[in-house]
Amino acid sequence: MPVRLFDDNDVRARLDAGTAVRAMRTAILAHHEGTVQAPPRVRADLGGGHLVFTAGHLREQELFGFRAYDTLVGAGQLVAVWDARDGELAALVHGAELGARRTGAIGAVAMEVAARPGPLRVGIVGAGVQAWTQLWAMLAVREVEEVLVAARRPERAETFAHRAAHELGVRTRAAGTVEDAVRDRDVVIVATNSAVPVLDAGWIAPGTHVNTIGPKTVSRHEVPAALAHHASVVLTDSRAQAAGYPEPHIFAVDAMVDLGAVLAGAVDVRTGPDQITVFSSVGLAGTEVALAAALVCRSPRPSSAVATA
Amino acid sequence: MPVRLFDDNDVRARLDAGTAVRAMRTAILAHHEGTVQAPPRVRADLGGGHLVFTAGHLREQELFGFRAYDTLVGAGQLVAVWDARDGELAALVHGAELGARRTGAIGAVAMEVAARPGPLRVGIVGAGVQAWTQLWAMLAVREVEEVLVAARRPERAETFAHRAAHELGVRTRAAGTVEDAVRDRDVVIVATNSAVPVLDAGWIAPGTHVNTIGPKTVSRHEVPAALAHHASVVLTDSRAQAAGYPEPHIFAVDAMVDLGAVLAGAVDVRTGPDQITVFSSVGLAGTEVALAAALVCRSPRPSSAVATA
Repeated sequence: MPVRLFDDNDVRARLDAGTAVRAMRTAILAHHEGTVQAPPRVRADLGGGHLVFTAGHLREQELFGFRAYDTLVGAGQLVAVWDARDGELAALVHGAELGARRTGAIGAVAMEVAARPGPLRVGIVGAGVQAWTQLWAMLAVREVEEVLVAARRPERAETFAHRAAHELGVRTRAAGTVEDAVRDRDVVIVATNSAVPVLDAGWIAPGTHVNTIGPKTVSRHEVPAALAHHASVVLTDSRAQAAGYPEPHIFAVDAMVDLGAVLAGAVDVRTGPDQITVFSSVGLAGTEVALAAALVCRSPRPSSAVATA
Repeated sequence: MPVRLFDDNDVRARLDAGTAVRAMRTAILAHHEGTVQAPPRVRADLGGGHLVFTAGHLREQELFGFRAYDTLVGAGQLVAVWDARDGELAALVHGAELGARRTGAIGAVAMEVAARPGPLRVGIVGAGVQAWTQLWAMLAVREVEEVLVAARRPERAETFAHRAAHELGVRTRAAGTVEDAVRDRDVVIVATNSAVPVLDAGWIAPGTHVNTIGPKTVSRHEVPAALAHHASVVLTDSRAQAAGYPEPHIFAVDAMVDLGAVLAGAVDVRTGPDQITVFSSVGLAGTEVALAAALVCRSPRPSSAVATA
């Protein structure tokens, strides 16, 4: 049986947002219920950089695999998935798209449970691929009334807005400032590479849910530590990973709530319309493998040959 | 640019013994000279088994990558190679064939430098894929006069002999016993899975070179510890790896000589025709990446598409 090899174009063509969000919801819940084995990442020293591996074993789906990436030259990621029943290599995915869609879909799972009911007015800070996939994924789970987007370079916000309107069919405008983009919103998405806060916690209105995707440690963080003080709850996809960063997380990890516990019904996240809620995305290990598996399941194997060189 | 994906059939069709031995000779020498970064293997716990990764960075060839294998179900290995200049994924190889040919080619490098000059009378214990690739590779570097092969199951020795004669064009016969196969030989190859010695050190004639491929720890070893006492030199492809086994090596690692030092001319291996020499194969880390790279270099990229699913 030929192995399926997917590149970024394949992922774009074959992985829709609904499938991605369902796969991430299932994986986060399975992790909470203990049916996913996702050990700490391991790394091999290449001299001047590392190869980093995050593995996952999805017992219910009888799949296992890993994601590999390097810090030597920043090559694209590689995800491999095997069938745990017969050891057959089920799929290989390389490039950047799977990882970005994974993060977007995890963010959507958080927005789905934490944002206020009803159509959402969304503010986005950042106009890169992470900002894009957050919006792409959330549209699969919630109705969006309007999006305002701010970026360090205004022309990128304009391009993002134009593309969102055309490709995602959602009313989107570039905002003049970050404050304009995030004030009086139902959902705020912060997806930058900024090492210093790009917004003031006071700009976030009561009732807003905030997804923060970018830097989140004490020395580099895109949102201020004070944001947690305004919030009734801070969610994360993995408290264990948040606690395991080389330097402390900007928020108190002990006070965070695992998204899996919310999905399992063990914890309430929003109990009123005026609470501020925050989701700090760390990238639950093993979810890349789950998403690669979903890609394979959505794509029936070809009955004829051949994916080999 | 499409990524090249090679399976076992591709490896069999495209990787000739001469190319494999040259690649391993170069890699072993480069490792000795310090231009290969090959860190200790790392492993991720899947629950009931592990994913194991050995990485390598070949600075001269400007390539890096890893080999992954699992102990959960024993799926085929996966080797990935990236170009260190631009981060492009250069090749993916999956299956068992690359690893077996690597071990064969490393064994041939040892036989080339340690066996007596002239046509060789070879004795082989074991009739599996490791025995096969040792013979396959050595034929690229030395003339073989005759092969005798012994196996636990006589019919497998017969099949091996028949196949060697037909596919490799070398005179090969099944031996009645291990002693018959290994007595009075120029080269003896031991490639079994036996946990107890399959031969007596006294059966090895003066002047013989022995390659041992299988189990080699104090609790499981296919050749007796006494073999080292008969030998003037015990070579290995990595003293560091031999010393790093979970339990001690059957031979004294401190007294072993690195094959890389021999290739560099720093150490003489055979100084007379009556010395017994031994090579204990441990599988130098990083050599899978080097061999996958050689496979790519032997196979010009297709000018047209497509290796993707």
